[in-house]
Amino acid sequence: MRDFGPEQVQKRQYIINTIKSVFELYGFMPIETPVMENLTTLNGKGGEESDKLLFKVLNSGDYLKKAEQQHLEEKNYKSLLPNISEKGLRYDLTVPLARYVVMHQNELTFPFKRYQIQPVWRADRPQKGRYREFWQCDADVLGSDSLLNEVELIQIFAKVFKQLGIEMNIHLNTRKLLVAMVELSGKQDKLTSFTVILDKLDKIGIDKVIELLNEAGFNAKTFDLVKAIANNSSDFLNSEVAKQLAQTETGKVGLQELNKILSLIDDETKQQVKIDATLARGLDYYTGPIFEIKAAGFSGSLGSGGRYDNLTGNFGLPGVSGVGISFGLDRIYDVMKDQNLFPTSNTNITQVLLINFDKETEQQVFQLTTQLRQTGLKTEFYPTQAKLKKQMKYANDKNIPFVILAGSRELESGKLTLKNMQNGEQQEADIKTIISILKDSIGNE
Amino acid sequence: MRDFGPEQVQKRQYIINTIKSVFELYGFMPIETPVMENLTTLNGKGGEESDKLLFKVLNSGDYLKKAEQQHLEEKNYKSLLPNISEKGLRYDLTVPLARYVVMHQNELTFPFKRYQIQPVWRADRPQKGRYREFWQCDADVLGSDSLLNEVELIQIFAKVFKQLGIEMNIHLNTRKLLVAMVELSGKQDKLTSFTVILDKLDKIGIDKVIELLNEAGFNAKTFDLVKAIANNSSDFLNSEVAKQLAQTETGKVGLQELNKILSLIDDETKQQVKIDATLARGLDYYTGPIFEIKAAGFSGSLGSGGRYDNLTGNFGLPGVSGVGISFGLDRIYDVMKDQNLFPTSNTNITQVLLINFDKETEQQVFQLTTQLRQTGLKTEFYPTQAKLKKQMKYANDKNIPFVILAGSRELESGKLTLKNMQNGEQQEADIKTIISILKDSIGNE
Repeated sequence: MRDFGPEQVQKRQYIINTIKSVFELYGFMPIETPVMENLTTLNGKGGEESDKLLFKVLNSGDYLKKAEQQHLEEKNYKSLLPNISEKGLRYDLTVPLARYVVMHQNELTFPFKRYQIQPVWRADRPQKGRYREFWQCDADVLGSDSLLNEVELIQIFAKVFKQLGIEMNIHLNTRKLLVAMVELSGKQDKLTSFTVILDKLDKIGIDKVIELLNEAGFNAKTFDLVKAIANNSSDFLNSEVAKQLAQTETGKVGLQELNKILSLIDDETKQQVKIDATLARGLDYYTGPIFEIKAAGFSGSLGSGGRYDNLTGNFGLPGVSGVGISFGLDRIYDVMKDQNLFPTSNTNITQVLLINFDKETEQQVFQLTTQLRQTGLKTEFYPTQAKLKKQMKYANDKNIPFVILAGSRELESGKLTLKNMQNGEQQEADIKTIISILKDSIGNE
Repeated sequence: MRDFGPEQVQKRQYIINTIKSVFELYGFMPIETPVMENLTTLNGKGGEESDKLLFKVLNSGDYLKKAEQQHLEEKNYKSLLPNISEKGLRYDLTVPLARYVVMHQNELTFPFKRYQIQPVWRADRPQKGRYREFWQCDADVLGSDSLLNEVELIQIFAKVFKQLGIEMNIHLNTRKLLVAMVELSGKQDKLTSFTVILDKLDKIGIDKVIELLNEAGFNAKTFDLVKAIANNSSDFLNSEVAKQLAQTETGKVGLQELNKILSLIDDETKQQVKIDATLARGLDYYTGPIFEIKAAGFSGSLGSGGRYDNLTGNFGLPGVSGVGISFGLDRIYDVMKDQNLFPTSNTNITQVLLINFDKETEQQVFQLTTQLRQTGLKTEFYPTQAKLKKQMKYANDKNIPFVILAGSRELESGKLTLKNMQNGEQQEADIKTIISILKDSIGNE
């Protein structure tokens, strides 16, 4: 897990603020949920695989109180677990959303449009671009099956990445086409395994995918369909394979979904949308359109999402259809850093440092800080009478653009020295003039 | 632990943004540290008491792998712990700061002024105003023993609470006066126990404090001193008891500290500062000036802080003096809610809802949303053709101030209906006029 220094925090905050403002432009409202949830809530959805990724929190006090002697003696960590741990750290923001909606259903206005920007944890082996603590920025609409929601979420993707300056494509598919493929192959019961294997296409290539499908018991029909979608290079919706998929009812509805979404999207955004029938998305709960954001030259997605029909079903509220997207803050940060996309101006840092010359003038110079700060200038006064060189080095190290030097002579005459740290220029002026110079040159709001 | 809905999140954000902007005005820069720290780090400072408050995270996978059979059989949860858990959730932001500074010491510029606004966790019994998950907003200066830092931190307190509209007093003391009291009593070895007992004065009253001091082995001299400081009602610095404390070297230095701080503070802030020799602060590590913010009619402090001389010593970096303050977000929220201090205007909510009349006009009306959003107006389009009443209720429930009604007749004529949801007034206008009406009435930035 990582520490973030001032520069990183501010750059991450820049991304978060951009995402937040676009979410709000589309009418999404923020919620926040606790870091810990009951393990029964967190386990609700995932199988053993996702259970492994959970950080579990020991019960407080004597956590062995309720432990069974037998489990202890056998060192059976699986059976012992429910007796010593009841809570875990959330591993995504979707499960807490489902729990939240069910718990607060009577206070909420549906369709419920919420966004949530918080960290999540996975007990994964850390690797490049993957962290055990990372942030998700999610927006979801619950209680509406209108495809207008999909269109708006795609527009949100487009707007955020445009504002951040990241070039990307929005890959669009629907789970219904995957269902159509297993139906055409007569393998309706193997949808999950089909999805999981197809999801690996980007990483392992088509030959290896066919091999895995073969091992998993799929047939020649499946292989043909998968090869056809993988090789399709242009207009998928009018391709041969699309016509085949349209022979099933599910496939037909899926193609209608994609056509409807495309018909509603504005022209600018449409140019970034790629219908991609190979897009599978790992997660089980998607049932309709799915999206993924890919940036050229960057493996892994910068964002993703999709429609689910029964997210809150596990928590006793069936029949709520929803659709959501998620931005991957850490990966977006990495891309922006690689491509040098962060704005260079940084208005969050100290704008002026007052030098601390001697005991005699300390109090008088210190009073100037109050005056400067009242005008909104981010101001520091060096707290001790360190050597001038050291104080100047402090300004340099912190990238403070201006320094004010005021010894007893300057204070008496009312003419202080202002030094521009970038070009080394110095000028003498009274404090009012200095304030207006600082405000002008910094472009303070 | 608590969920926060949209209104709460936005109000909390308002407080956080206020604190943040003042921290930055004084040259503090943000850092963020992981939620989990090694238990060895977290335990470094506290005794068994603070250890009890830690949420401990089970090691991943087979957490019993390294467990000793004997500890398991004896159900010895204390001895077993180090073998099954290596990490815990941070319980404050001070320990992570110390760890951070030691770890990154070569990259940092000293004096190091950082702020940190993040949640912390304590496995406490929840009670009013006390939560198991809560936020701290800390600012600290490390590597400077100048009292100017104390003065600036006091000014930060004053500025933040002024901006929030909260009336409060800044109680100021120094640990050195407490040291002087135990020295005068000949009980130098009992400083911690003296501090812990004195810290309860507000809650249990003077008689009970004397009783506890008696039980803890203090003497008549201590009782007299404590009674004298508790009864002192006016000018403490010139009181009899202050003169007594000045007889010890530590007491003398302590009084000089307080005088120096007062001499540097601006007049407006000084009016809110109360020298309070009974202020003790619970934490062990303070060695110099200490502060606490108290609001009339509200028990418990809204903020606190103090100077420590050896925070990083435990982590191998001795001799770094620092001073810091912390705002209690949750309590500030409670006070502001009680006193109705939150601004009523809320610019974060959706500003206009477009009604979705029928399939025929859906696409055309949907395109208006893009136009509205491009001007920065927070806009929603109801995603289905629900009954008008239901759509209007949606706007009402979400406090959306304006609704646009555009059926095929309106779209044809170019005159849309704009309804003000607060006064019920309706007017017909083209989209450009509507946009300027909305921008004017909402005072959009």
